[in-house]
Amino acid sequence: MIGQAKKKLISSLSQKKYRDKHGLFVAEGPKLLHDLLEAGIQAEMILTTENVPLPETRSSAVTEIVTAQELKKISFLKTPQNTLAVFRMPSVKFHPEQLNNQLSLALDGIQDPGNMGTIIRMADWFGISTIVCSKDTVDCYNPKVVQASMGALARVRVIYTDLPAFCQQVSSNSDLKTFGTFMDGENIYALDLPSSGIIVMGNEGSGIRPETAKYVTRKIAVPSFSKGGMESLNVGIAAAIVCSEFRRTTLL
Amino acid sequence: MIGQAKKKLISSLSQKKYRDKHGLFVAEGPKLLHDLLEAGIQAEMILTTENVPLPETRSSAVTEIVTAQELKKISFLKTPQNTLAVFRMPSVKFHPEQLNNQLSLALDGIQDPGNMGTIIRMADWFGISTIVCSKDTVDCYNPKVVQASMGALARVRVIYTDLPAFCQQVSSNSDLKTFGTFMDGENIYALDLPSSGIIVMGNEGSGIRPETAKYVTRKIAVPSFSKGGMESLNVGIAAAIVCSEFRRTTLL
Repeated sequence: MIGQAKKKLISSLSQKKYRDKHGLFVAEGPKLLHDLLEAGIQAEMILTTENVPLPETRSSAVTEIVTAQELKKISFLKTPQNTLAVFRMPSVKFHPEQLNNQLSLALDGIQDPGNMGTIIRMADWFGISTIVCSKDTVDCYNPKVVQASMGALARVRVIYTDLPAFCQQVSSNSDLKTFGTFMDGENIYALDLPSSGIIVMGNEGSGIRPETAKYVTRKIAVPSFSKGGMESLNVGIAAAIVCSEFRRTTLL
Repeated sequence: MIGQAKKKLISSLSQKKYRDKHGLFVAEGPKLLHDLLEAGIQAEMILTTENVPLPETRSSAVTEIVTAQELKKISFLKTPQNTLAVFRMPSVKFHPEQLNNQLSLALDGIQDPGNMGTIIRMADWFGISTIVCSKDTVDCYNPKVVQASMGALARVRVIYTDLPAFCQQVSSNSDLKTFGTFMDGENIYALDLPSSGIIVMGNEGSGIRPETAKYVTRKIAVPSFSKGGMESLNVGIAAAIVCSEFRRTTLL
């Protein structure tokens, strides 16, 4: 039996203000639980149905056996995955100098949780360890983002800050170049790309804000090969192609 | 007022068997309606709320003004978009020889509608006009696929067939090479890629089936730069990076 207080707490964690208030977030499924625990993220509560073997946990969290029916009631998923855990958000200390000699991502107002999760997962694949986000970018602890990131959230740190101010600071205090995708940007395939820098991706509908664009050193674009002309690229797909190009050229 | 028969028909089109029976599918939103009409897809019914200006239509479909409340009741979307239209599936005549001298995609059991829509949209961007799918790949007229494809469905034809038999036929009757992504494939960045061929992408969980893999000429992979080791790439992202590489090398 899950007590009323726990139910209420878990339910509240679908909302950013309560996640921030408690410093907690929800992750579902045994694989995700395993990945987050492996990465040292602290579990505060683990609820699981009887027949699910739990991974060897590095956590002091008490594991509670619940019925599938109980889990279904509190799960944020359409198809609950036998395990639901409440984790403590890791505290992140961030200084822009840490990005020197690294390839990083910056997100200017990404709204869709699925896109955000895909971008975190893709960043992990390409060994990008920091994503700097504007404050209006969707919260990385949103349950849909957590699920879509598939554990990559444990290995990629996501920072929320005043993005134009951050880009200005980077442009005046470091050798890092800032690359942003624009419709009229330079053909990325033809560019000589550095092994470090910051790749800025804009909002799904409106792209990079003028306030941020001011500090973009180089405007880039993925060229289209379509004969149509009404086509567009999903922001997660565009980000992946750009990251792939940066990583590919460092291998040459 | 939308009549009961129309309501019932529209509601039934959420299911593949009724889409196939009637040869109809649903698309929502004025932009998608516009794109599909522009591409010559035939609308059979257009329902729109009063204040939405309709695009100049090439369709003989009767446009019916409905209330936002009525539209909300029949919409498949969480946030209805003022316009819902029923389209006739275009008939597609397909011969594998049509793929000669072209870059095409083959999908072996893609399940997620969002991934499918993203792949269709990405294919359109890269000028890929044909996607050949195994019969168990998610239906391209699934309402979630239609919405996620953002009109690209009008410019990319999607064929459902016996995929291993198709790959066998291609391998024995044409000069086209078949490329498939595998965990242990060759580093795609290091390969000399041709301007035509078939790129096979596998199921989200289990990859390309052995029956299909038999006919894959070349096993490829997007290398990971992660220090973690538990990372994975979303199939839509992987497909996009592979297509980007094929198109990039033809520009060299």
